[in-house]
Amino acid sequence: MAVRAAVAGASGYAGGELLRLLLAHPEVEIGALTGNANAGQRLGALQPHLLPLAGRVLEPTTAEVLAGHDVVFLALPHGQSAAVAEQLGPDVLVVDMGADFRLRDAGEWEKFYGGPHAGTWPYGLPELPGARAALAGARRIAVPGCYPTAVSLALFPAYGADLVEPDAVIVAASGTSGAGKAAKPHLLGSEVMGSMSPYGVGGLHRHTPEMIQNLSAAAGTPVSVSFTPTLAPMPRGILATCSAKAKPGVTPETVRAAYEKAFADEPFVHLLPEGQWPATAAVYGSNAVLVQVAYDEAAGRVIVISAIDNLTKGTAGGALQSMNIALGLDEATGLSTIGVAP
Amino acid sequence: MAVRAAVAGASGYAGGELLRLLLAHPEVEIGALTGNANAGQRLGALQPHLLPLAGRVLEPTTAEVLAGHDVVFLALPHGQSAAVAEQLGPDVLVVDMGADFRLRDAGEWEKFYGGPHAGTWPYGLPELPGARAALAGARRIAVPGCYPTAVSLALFPAYGADLVEPDAVIVAASGTSGAGKAAKPHLLGSEVMGSMSPYGVGGLHRHTPEMIQNLSAAAGTPVSVSFTPTLAPMPRGILATCSAKAKPGVTPETVRAAYEKAFADEPFVHLLPEGQWPATAAVYGSNAVLVQVAYDEAAGRVIVISAIDNLTKGTAGGALQSMNIALGLDEATGLSTIGVAP
Amino acid sequence: MAVRAAVAGASGYAGGELLRLLLAHPEVEIGALTGNANAGQRLGALQPHLLPLAGRVLEPTTAEVLAGHDVVFLALPHGQSAAVAEQLGPDVLVVDMGADFRLRDAGEWEKFYGGPHAGTWPYGLPELPGARAALAGARRIAVPGCYPTAVSLALFPAYGADLVEPDAVIVAASGTSGAGKAAKPHLLGSEVMGSMSPYGVGGLHRHTPEMIQNLSAAAGTPVSVSFTPTLAPMPRGILATCSAKAKPGVTPETVRAAYEKAFADEPFVHLLPEGQWPATAAVYGSNAVLVQVAYDEAAGRVIVISAIDNLTKGTAGGALQSMNIALGLDEATGLSTIGVAP
Amino acid sequence: MAVRAAVAGASGYAGGELLRLLLAHPEVEIGALTGNANAGQRLGALQPHLLPLAGRVLEPTTAEVLAGHDVVFLALPHGQSAAVAEQLGPDVLVVDMGADFRLRDAGEWEKFYGGPHAGTWPYGLPELPGARAALAGARRIAVPGCYPTAVSLALFPAYGADLVEPDAVIVAASGTSGAGKAAKPHLLGSEVMGSMSPYGVGGLHRHTPEMIQNLSAAAGTPVSVSFTPTLAPMPRGILATCSAKAKPGVTPETVRAAYEKAFADEPFVHLLPEGQWPATAAVYGSNAVLVQVAYDEAAGRVIVISAIDNLTKGTAGGALQSMNIALGLDEATGLSTIGVAP
Repeated sequence: MAVRAAVAGASGYAGGELLRLLLAHPEVEIGALTGNANAGQRLGALQPHLLPLAGRVLEPTTAEVLAGHDVVFLALPHGQSAAVAEQLGPDVLVVDMGADFRLRDAGEWEKFYGGPHAGTWPYGLPELPGARAALAGARRIAVPGCYPTAVSLALFPAYGADLVEPDAVIVAASGTSGAGKAAKPHLLGSEVMGSMSPYGVGGLHRHTPEMIQNLSAAAGTPVSVSFTPTLAPMPRGILATCSAKAKPGVTPETVRAAYEKAFADEPFVHLLPEGQWPATAAVYGSNAVLVQVAYDEAAGRVIVISAIDNLTKGTAGGALQSMNIALGLDEATGLSTIGVAP
Repeated sequence: MAVRAAVAGASGYAGGELLRLLLAHPEVEIGALTGNANAGQRLGALQPHLLPLAGRVLEPTTAEVLAGHDVVFLALPHGQSAAVAEQLGPDVLVVDMGADFRLRDAGEWEKFYGGPHAGTWPYGLPELPGARAALAGARRIAVPGCYPTAVSLALFPAYGADLVEPDAVIVAASGTSGAGKAAKPHLLGSEVMGSMSPYGVGGLHRHTPEMIQNLSAAAGTPVSVSFTPTLAPMPRGILATCSAKAKPGVTPETVRAAYEKAFADEPFVHLLPEGQWPATAAVYGSNAVLVQVAYDEAAGRVIVISAIDNLTKGTAGGALQSMNIALGLDEATGLSTIGVAP
Repeated sequence: MAVRAAVAGASGYAGGELLRLLLAHPEVEIGALTGNANAGQRLGALQPHLLPLAGRVLEPTTAEVLAGHDVVFLALPHGQSAAVAEQLGPDVLVVDMGADFRLRDAGEWEKFYGGPHAGTWPYGLPELPGARAALAGARRIAVPGCYPTAVSLALFPAYGADLVEPDAVIVAASGTSGAGKAAKPHLLGSEVMGSMSPYGVGGLHRHTPEMIQNLSAAAGTPVSVSFTPTLAPMPRGILATCSAKAKPGVTPETVRAAYEKAFADEPFVHLLPEGQWPATAAVYGSNAVLVQVAYDEAAGRVIVISAIDNLTKGTAGGALQSMNIALGLDEATGLSTIGVAP
Repeated sequence: MAVRAAVAGASGYAGGELLRLLLAHPEVEIGALTGNANAGQRLGALQPHLLPLAGRVLEPTTAEVLAGHDVVFLALPHGQSAAVAEQLGPDVLVVDMGADFRLRDAGEWEKFYGGPHAGTWPYGLPELPGARAALAGARRIAVPGCYPTAVSLALFPAYGADLVEPDAVIVAASGTSGAGKAAKPHLLGSEVMGSMSPYGVGGLHRHTPEMIQNLSAAAGTPVSVSFTPTLAPMPRGILATCSAKAKPGVTPETVRAAYEKAFADEPFVHLLPEGQWPATAAVYGSNAVLVQVAYDEAAGRVIVISAIDNLTKGTAGGALQSMNIALGLDEATGLSTIGVAP
């Protein structure tokens, strides 16, 4: 029997990617699609790449419209998910693709997002230790941020195997879809093509506390994170360059062994053969995470680089993967490790 | 029972796209993968986006390697397909993604490609009048060129309904993958990013006689084609702007009616609602063809614009669509009208 | 003695490009810089590439602020130039980079722009026959649109030499800066990267009557224009593919001779050697116009392709070139034919 | 009296950029232009953006051709400069844009480049302490690598003021022109557009010892460098994200003060106002270096980000700046801090 899914926020990039994947999911039937400013418009005008849904019309985001589904995906601006979720009842699986329920520390939430903390839901990054158990049967899921997905998967094995010191340095490049579909001057094509630029430098990016939360859990001790995001001239993709000082006794072999072990049974995280490095083009539209690791003896650091598609594994694909687990489906249903390239 | 498929030329862009689609085709089992210079290499190093095939090793392109398959796809340089096809026997379905068997006129072949003409195979553009009948049960298929696919689908309804004069003007922009994976200086990223440039101007492009062949057949009279291809700073996609002088009595309504009728039952060709124009981004990785038409009364011309993905509908998707027909499968099996955007 | 120049609309792309060129102009001293919504802001925040002006602050666009200059450049939204110009007095050179004074036919103005026609000023495309005489000593100049610049320079020699029939077909690709700096969803980097799309198809683009005006003047008879603009994934540049049916007796030699003659003494328009075609990358930031021409005998058409930088020769460089003529300076002062590539 | 300059290696990206700048240098007359494989070709075919030199023909790179100039620029593959320089005599100013004479440590040279070390020439990064004195009157100049330019200028003030620990972590993104004009598959437009990818990870990049040399000199103590270069989908530009652990007592104010002091009198290095971050688009074609600095208290690190144009300040502009000093000209002659944007 089909799982009936509604998508709140179907006109944005996260919502559009989710619909692209849901259309290919054999167990899901797409129900209500809602928007705010775009309610009443044809999806064909807003998401012209989703031809099978071109004739669907967006409805307003209300409890009535979202009622009667098995799963409701929320792709809403930060701070709006709690009110909607409350009205949906405890038996509906609510998958929040926003930030509202990711952090455990209310103080960090308030510092980075402002306003009261809505709570903490099971965290939808199945590859982290213990995550699958928490997701199985869950009826509320907090989908991780795109950067924390790329960074946490790159570094948790190093922290889990106690290979590195607890201060990580991360520089990541993201495609522009990570900044959303709202029209802002600095996101114009004229501005971003041909340009690399940083933002949120010095610990200001809202994904920083989420990385700290995940890496500290893996390390069993507080980890500090220096995180610099940069905007790259491409629509999709995150390339995260992550490093930390190696602990004494670390060798290239111990590092590689830790990563081989961590990802051995993962359907989506792939440690590349030695000498091959991840490129975001190889995960375009795919749910795969490509990882490579190096030990720079001269600098005394372990460097891990991961590539994901920020909209797929970084948002909508990750959401679907967690939904599969929560509903008892095969985790990889409707997802693939095949990218669209070149 | 699965259809066993081999791909000769698996390291290039056409071969890679075909493998991407074959991996998602429910009736196909991927058999031998061959290359020339790349024989012996892991596919993971050549096509890193195809993770499920990463461990496969390319074999040399020989009759022995290609034997024992139900379908053999040839993604070879022009002029090499005939020799391979001959060795495969008449019962194997051979799908040639090169130009060798597209043209009916040997003189045109020799003029544009040089060397002797190898012959003419059933032409793999199912949407053209009569094409499906010729493809049903076929054991040899000539896959159309990418530009002729975009242009012929844009203009055959106008010629079929006798709406326009027999001299068409076409300017098309193509992504760089259309030029292949061989490293040439003018295709370097440094050269193509930020630049639009024409090539093969003045009727020199090899796809010109193929367009003339298709449009003349639709018109029932010789059609001349002025074709200017341009290279656009994007990896994939063709946007074809096609126009011809309207015949007397033509109105916006007669034009639209002809296109609605021509595409009414087509699974992949989609006439957009009035006022919405095709963008190549909407067909990225999809087998869809987006079309819109206008009648410019002041200039007295019918303008038709089509967008395709040159590697999908323009090459590998088109090949698969024709294979499905030849084998008696549902034409849309393993293909979709869903693009990857943004 | 320095020419004192003010720029109204200094925060947009046209204004920014003009400032870039004015900074290198040896006879000009930059005076007042004005904006509307951006008045009060540092130019360094709005145009970070213009370091020598980083500390300048935008003033409001008023007659008081613009008074006391020798030249006032208006880079304002359509319809706003007349009111400002009136207040500046007849001795000030006013160079309008908007559309208000380009068209001679009030009916065409009203049809394409709406509202009353403000008048017609000397037209700032010096290469057109008779244009330099009209610009010499002028105190009002209408800078041409970017597309009409590329198209008129490509086709006026063919019409002037009576080589082609009076119905031209033009397909042009423009970089996104041609659409301005106002944030609109379809101009987001996520939308334009990787995509080609048409707009204003079927004679709807406002630059159409301007092309008709220029080409009809060159032909001495009414010329019809089928114009299709497309948006290309690059910040700057226009590639215009222009063609028309050849008149009887035309040969490749007569065509080339006409173009060699037309451009022989032009400082900025350059007919490329046979076999070399224009690329927009070669005119990035330069005032040059690259042109190549072909005669397609089979299709019976003359094809002319031109490449310009839409912001330089297409807007600000063209404005400066005309200013030089109006002020009696050497026409090429402060301008160059050197692009920034790759 | 004009300085007569020859350029060996005029067909590549470094040579082309140098010619672009030399054309605008008021004291330089362009003499011989040489190439290897391209000798005999018109520059117009190789560097179509340099219209004033379109008719020049490349000569072979020989001592005879290069004789009789005041300055000879060498834009040759690594390892070829010494043999050419020897033949030019001690009075000619030889500016080597390759790597041959940058390193002081012969062992490091051999480790990273292979073959015998040719020697060490005055280092052409004038902003480093003591560099201008060494360049004044010099007749041999080693132009720095593009990455070391961006990184050394970002970090030397922090090391000079003893603000940070001696282990730096650097992740830099470069445009594709940094990889040169030789056609390699991974540099094809189809491969690089839409993709970010790392290379030379783990201390393998040849620019690493050059950074270590510069930063250790600034610190007065050995500095280790973890350097990860990435390839970005843009033709030009380097964005370098550099950080190091803050020493005790460091505050945002001490950091900012050190940078204000270091760059106070620099004509090309510009510390942005607080809150504004560098973007590579703002230095496109300019010799400027944009720098911003932050102190991340939570992570305990000082983060410095710099943006340069890899071909201008990173190669040809830097070369010209040093030439100016060596010849006793004003350092900024023929160079500008004005970029081409958008």
